[in-house]
Amino acid sequence: MLRLDSHPSGQHFLHIPGPSPVPARILRAISFQTIDHRGPEFGQLGLKVLEGIKQIFRTQHPVVIYPASGTGAWEAALVNTLSPGDLVLMYETGHFASLWRKLADRLGLQTEFISFPGIEGWRRGVDPERIAARLREDTQHRIKAVCVVHNETSTGVVSDIAAVRRAIDAAGHPALLMVDAVSGLGSAEYRHDDWGVDVTVAGSQKGLMLPPGLGFNAISPKALEASRLARLPKAFWAWDEYLDMNRNGYWPTTPATNLLYGLHEAIDMILGEGLDNVLARHQRLGAACRAAIDAWGLENLCLDPSQVSPVSTAVLLPEAYDADGLRRLILERYNLSLGTGLGKVKGRVFRIGHLGDCNALTLLAALSGCEMGMRAFGVPLKASGVVAAQECLQ
Amino acid sequence: MLRLDSHPSGQHFLHIPGPSPVPARILRAISFQTIDHRGPEFGQLGLKVLEGIKQIFRTQHPVVIYPASGTGAWEAALVNTLSPGDLVLMYETGHFASLWRKLADRLGLQTEFISFPGIEGWRRGVDPERIAARLREDTQHRIKAVCVVHNETSTGVVSDIAAVRRAIDAAGHPALLMVDAVSGLGSAEYRHDDWGVDVTVAGSQKGLMLPPGLGFNAISPKALEASRLARLPKAFWAWDEYLDMNRNGYWPTTPATNLLYGLHEAIDMILGEGLDNVLARHQRLGAACRAAIDAWGLENLCLDPSQVSPVSTAVLLPEAYDADGLRRLILERYNLSLGTGLGKVKGRVFRIGHLGDCNALTLLAALSGCEMGMRAFGVPLKASGVVAAQECLQ
Amino acid sequence: MLRLDSHPSGQHFLHIPGPSPVPARILRAISFQTIDHRGPEFGQLGLKVLEGIKQIFRTQHPVVIYPASGTGAWEAALVNTLSPGDLVLMYETGHFASLWRKLADRLGLQTEFISFPGIEGWRRGVDPERIAARLREDTQHRIKAVCVVHNETSTGVVSDIAAVRRAIDAAGHPALLMVDAVSGLGSAEYRHDDWGVDVTVAGSQKGLMLPPGLGFNAISPKALEASRLARLPKAFWAWDEYLDMNRNGYWPTTPATNLLYGLHEAIDMILGEGLDNVLARHQRLGAACRAAIDAWGLENLCLDPSQVSPVSTAVLLPEAYDADGLRRLILERYNLSLGTGLGKVKGRVFRIGHLGDCNALTLLAALSGCEMGMRAFGVPLKASGVVAAQECLQ
Amino acid sequence: MLRLDSHPSGQHFLHIPGPSPVPARILRAISFQTIDHRGPEFGQLGLKVLEGIKQIFRTQHPVVIYPASGTGAWEAALVNTLSPGDLVLMYETGHFASLWRKLADRLGLQTEFISFPGIEGWRRGVDPERIAARLREDTQHRIKAVCVVHNETSTGVVSDIAAVRRAIDAAGHPALLMVDAVSGLGSAEYRHDDWGVDVTVAGSQKGLMLPPGLGFNAISPKALEASRLARLPKAFWAWDEYLDMNRNGYWPTTPATNLLYGLHEAIDMILGEGLDNVLARHQRLGAACRAAIDAWGLENLCLDPSQVSPVSTAVLLPEAYDADGLRRLILERYNLSLGTGLGKVKGRVFRIGHLGDCNALTLLAALSGCEMGMRAFGVPLKASGVVAAQECLQ
Repeated sequence: MLRLDSHPSGQHFLHIPGPSPVPARILRAISFQTIDHRGPEFGQLGLKVLEGIKQIFRTQHPVVIYPASGTGAWEAALVNTLSPGDLVLMYETGHFASLWRKLADRLGLQTEFISFPGIEGWRRGVDPERIAARLREDTQHRIKAVCVVHNETSTGVVSDIAAVRRAIDAAGHPALLMVDAVSGLGSAEYRHDDWGVDVTVAGSQKGLMLPPGLGFNAISPKALEASRLARLPKAFWAWDEYLDMNRNGYWPTTPATNLLYGLHEAIDMILGEGLDNVLARHQRLGAACRAAIDAWGLENLCLDPSQVSPVSTAVLLPEAYDADGLRRLILERYNLSLGTGLGKVKGRVFRIGHLGDCNALTLLAALSGCEMGMRAFGVPLKASGVVAAQECLQ
Repeated sequence: MLRLDSHPSGQHFLHIPGPSPVPARILRAISFQTIDHRGPEFGQLGLKVLEGIKQIFRTQHPVVIYPASGTGAWEAALVNTLSPGDLVLMYETGHFASLWRKLADRLGLQTEFISFPGIEGWRRGVDPERIAARLREDTQHRIKAVCVVHNETSTGVVSDIAAVRRAIDAAGHPALLMVDAVSGLGSAEYRHDDWGVDVTVAGSQKGLMLPPGLGFNAISPKALEASRLARLPKAFWAWDEYLDMNRNGYWPTTPATNLLYGLHEAIDMILGEGLDNVLARHQRLGAACRAAIDAWGLENLCLDPSQVSPVSTAVLLPEAYDADGLRRLILERYNLSLGTGLGKVKGRVFRIGHLGDCNALTLLAALSGCEMGMRAFGVPLKASGVVAAQECLQ
Repeated sequence: MLRLDSHPSGQHFLHIPGPSPVPARILRAISFQTIDHRGPEFGQLGLKVLEGIKQIFRTQHPVVIYPASGTGAWEAALVNTLSPGDLVLMYETGHFASLWRKLADRLGLQTEFISFPGIEGWRRGVDPERIAARLREDTQHRIKAVCVVHNETSTGVVSDIAAVRRAIDAAGHPALLMVDAVSGLGSAEYRHDDWGVDVTVAGSQKGLMLPPGLGFNAISPKALEASRLARLPKAFWAWDEYLDMNRNGYWPTTPATNLLYGLHEAIDMILGEGLDNVLARHQRLGAACRAAIDAWGLENLCLDPSQVSPVSTAVLLPEAYDADGLRRLILERYNLSLGTGLGKVKGRVFRIGHLGDCNALTLLAALSGCEMGMRAFGVPLKASGVVAAQECLQ
Repeated sequence: MLRLDSHPSGQHFLHIPGPSPVPARILRAISFQTIDHRGPEFGQLGLKVLEGIKQIFRTQHPVVIYPASGTGAWEAALVNTLSPGDLVLMYETGHFASLWRKLADRLGLQTEFISFPGIEGWRRGVDPERIAARLREDTQHRIKAVCVVHNETSTGVVSDIAAVRRAIDAAGHPALLMVDAVSGLGSAEYRHDDWGVDVTVAGSQKGLMLPPGLGFNAISPKALEASRLARLPKAFWAWDEYLDMNRNGYWPTTPATNLLYGLHEAIDMILGEGLDNVLARHQRLGAACRAAIDAWGLENLCLDPSQVSPVSTAVLLPEAYDADGLRRLILERYNLSLGTGLGKVKGRVFRIGHLGDCNALTLLAALSGCEMGMRAFGVPLKASGVVAAQECLQ
């Protein structure tokens, strides 16, 4: 059998944009013995995490926690609120926006995708005006929901969700606003209530620093209202049973108990450090990463400086270089995992995650690995990115 | 915050019919650092578990592993193979059969439930003749699937799946056979291929000795064929992307990596002990548990000795006693968790799990806890069940 | 290589009189990453455990914690307080008293052993009058120390330490009183200050529920005074450097950091449950174990009911039966480890540990294993010990 | 109570010259449940580690493993081979040589210390000619042992042990050669047999990547012979009982079972990577660290390029800067622990460990932390040490 514990000597540096490295404290928590999910101890745990997670979403309203991946939480958001054939307005910000759209199509929704030629859409965030314009045209309110991605994991571009909300309101349109905050939650500023989001979708393996296996839906009263009339078939994902059982800290299905132990610990860690401090740390690390890219003379996939991600950064390589070949070399030589280019930027970019349990030295280690790897791969670099990042972090 | 590690002194005895106690070896495996689910190391892990799990299902055909609970795997079995309004024949063997039926209804299927007054159906397994009779009537083949539960976790009754298959064949009916083996897989004899099952549904937290969080679909060629025409909306659960990505050991969604580490370990443990040995051990433990019940002068919910479960046993209390009050007393005094009575037998039975990482002494400890607890609760006992169980195990 | 994680199915029952089973909570604590033992975080940890451990010893005076086994702590007690050729009065209560005496001899001390023919001394605790008589004879105070074992792990007999103190005082003798409380600390009543003990020796792997690897010396002011004049060579064990460094929470040598994490957790668990509650639990479990032995019609090695140990019990087998053969059978069939007969009672007794993280059901499981094992081995039993133990625990 | 698990966000970088960071794989191994140290499973484990460790020492002869720190192993080497008042020749290479000498004095040996004014001796390794000269003078063979430190942890200087052996032989002197290889074993080339060492002293928390708590003596036949006549009192440390019990894989005292699990894993890791590969990796990392120091324009405490340590490097700060103040700043800002200056170089140097489970990126992270820290502390740096180290590692 595979020897799970085998590893090259020394620390592995996991700098993909998620899963992010799971702190030892959380790994220890998930190795606590599984308990009866109908017993009194579980009820206490359930109430703690259901209450605590609201602070991370910055919401007063319920958050449903599925034993499932973020993809499942995408599906849950749609099937709970929409009916077969409903029109959904989506926006091509990158690979995950495209996948969410494909998922909506498979579920029998009609999707309209604000898309762009080539990789143009992948280099900028959502333009709220485009959404407002489309909604104004939709005088009959055929569009039932607007779905956008907050932090596009595939591109390192953040969209202004509050502005999207204002655009919808300005158009006087009743569509629900659904947001994928999978990679942004807990690592980039996010405000479910203040920004008027109806459903926020998230996952465990990014800013929450957990292994994958939990999916989240934060639900506004308006979304809850919509769910009463929505006719897409739903059972596993149905909010109603969750909201009912969660009241006492229990789940309608068998919960992923051990990941909930980890979530309990993660909430304690994030609130212990202070959510604002956590977000500020991500901002500092993101800036340092971009300073390195500038110093190298390479290009950030994200074009607009006001939309750069504090979570991850996609680095465009000169055309002659295969980013996946570079990543392979770096993994083998330096025990550093970087994110692959997805979809339209396959082979063109590599992505550096700087989220979750990341600090200055882990990032500098990762940038060192990139720097040495690119030199070995023959990519011309103008100057040391590590030195630039150090200056930024000083 | 809740102190996860707090516990009453000494070992907790988890004897619900699942989650079963997770061996330390598996808990350690799931605490291995999360890795890149798109990297080469993951691919190796994926291929190992996808191949290994087939041996537990006793199938040559693909098994899909969802980052979800068993409930999700129920849904997956239905949405992949059926179309809106399809008629499904289900059979009331207990609480989980009833829940599966409810789930099918919610998904927009038409269900026909072979049901029984009172708790009559809950005390016996599936009568294949009832199914055969119904199928013979269905000359137009409106019934698209027959769904039965293999080991009813709520009752401790095992149904003869091979006989159900024979009944369907004898009726010359093309319906798919779908089986819930959630609590039976790895603890009671189960043969996906030999028994001609089309979709077997399973979960991680029973005989596989893992925490909850993985759901399984074992898929026959006929089920796969059916999935090409099935029109229930599906995206997260869609087999097609799984089968495509699994070929190289990868997942279409973010997999529950850490639980897959645990699954790898569980497969190694089960095949290391020998699947037949594992099943024989469960048989011995089940027999010992029933010997205790006989000695106490209490009644097994399961009426037919040929249908008793090697996985768990439901004990009927005399009417005057509230089974949940008894369970509470036992938990508080003896640190022993027993299963609650579900649905129609709420308050009437308690359930003893003897599955997974269970051996003679853990069972005897649990039976001691039951015995002392019942005495303290005033339940009249004829003789010591522990002594009877010891004799049985000797 | 040996696969450390391989194990027979199900829970292993470790019922030797130490090491006792280590709770998962402590195992998790010792797997926390090692830190700089000269850094500020360590200093805090050091102060916490050095202060906390005093409450377990019930002392106001310093306790030194060695990165060593209990044997090392025996040596430390002697080399810190005595000079070459000093006369030490020791008392044959069993195997560990004999080993301590042997160790004293090897260190160049002159030992006088109050010993007994055959196993007579092994069936009773210290007779304080024997000590008083000897001390009264020693008018020239040649005897520098009286060394006795509190809970003889090899026999399950507890000696009355307060009475020994009174005997010394009654004799008006200045000898130091040194006590081996290795297996009694944290499981049997023990009062370092109230009982006037000068040096108490202890280890981590018994009532403290830790893995082996820490040795303890609790030190009275009189012992500290004696250490200033003592001339046995000492360096690693020298108290002076410890007492100096411990003031700020540090160690003169590299401390066993990870076991100190465990100790921190153990102290938290014991004080959380309440030391008196912990001791009362051990009393209950010891009584239940003895009830089982009575029911079986077997003999407790300990003859005096006022001296029975709440920590472990040694069961005398009828002469025809080899206790080690029985233990082997029980280990193989039931995954239960029992203590072997040591020294003079080799092959005659097996020992049941009921200490540390033990509760009613683990003890009943162990007694079930003994009962089934003895039947399989042909040992005639009068009645079920498990039933008797249950009654006792009810 | 102290919350052991609390930590600043992100990975802690432990770059003291030991304890070195313990790999997760070893931390998991030491959290395996403690077993009966007299049972059959332990015997297998014991034989495995006792045999495996010989390969790390490169010896065919026995290695004794104490449940104690390296200081204990120093004591063991002396008390097993020497008699009260014996003359021992020691050599001032730094702090640990001085401590060993002090320990020898406390044990009643007569020590002669080849020492140097100021920190002169701390900047070079042993000069074998000095030893040869002294031994030639000792025509009556009053010197019973020559004790030297292989890798001086306090200075980052390696001494040529083979040359010391040649010097002793050239002098035709029968003194035993005892070597402290605590920080060198498993990280710097070391050959117990080939170099003719009589007793090698080692500890677990350096190149062996374990937590502290195990001490080692590798014993030549000549040392064993000497132990038969040696008259220093010894009991806990006595080799004879170890060698006797170890034959079957057992220990004369309670072994540190959980650390032995870790040792088993460590041996597997080292031999899996290949001992020569492990040593070559340390050489590369040491060279990179020195390249950084050169680039910074700072001075290595070690003056002789042929004596630089692959294990750790001591960096001399310009006089105006307090090295401990710098270390504090670096720990607080960058979560990086560096080694303090010890003894004669207190406040003058900081030490960078690059041993054990260390790789290129962890070292570059540590060097980044040093670089940023020194800038923040006002230490003038000529150029980026990280860039220089990268070039060296490329």
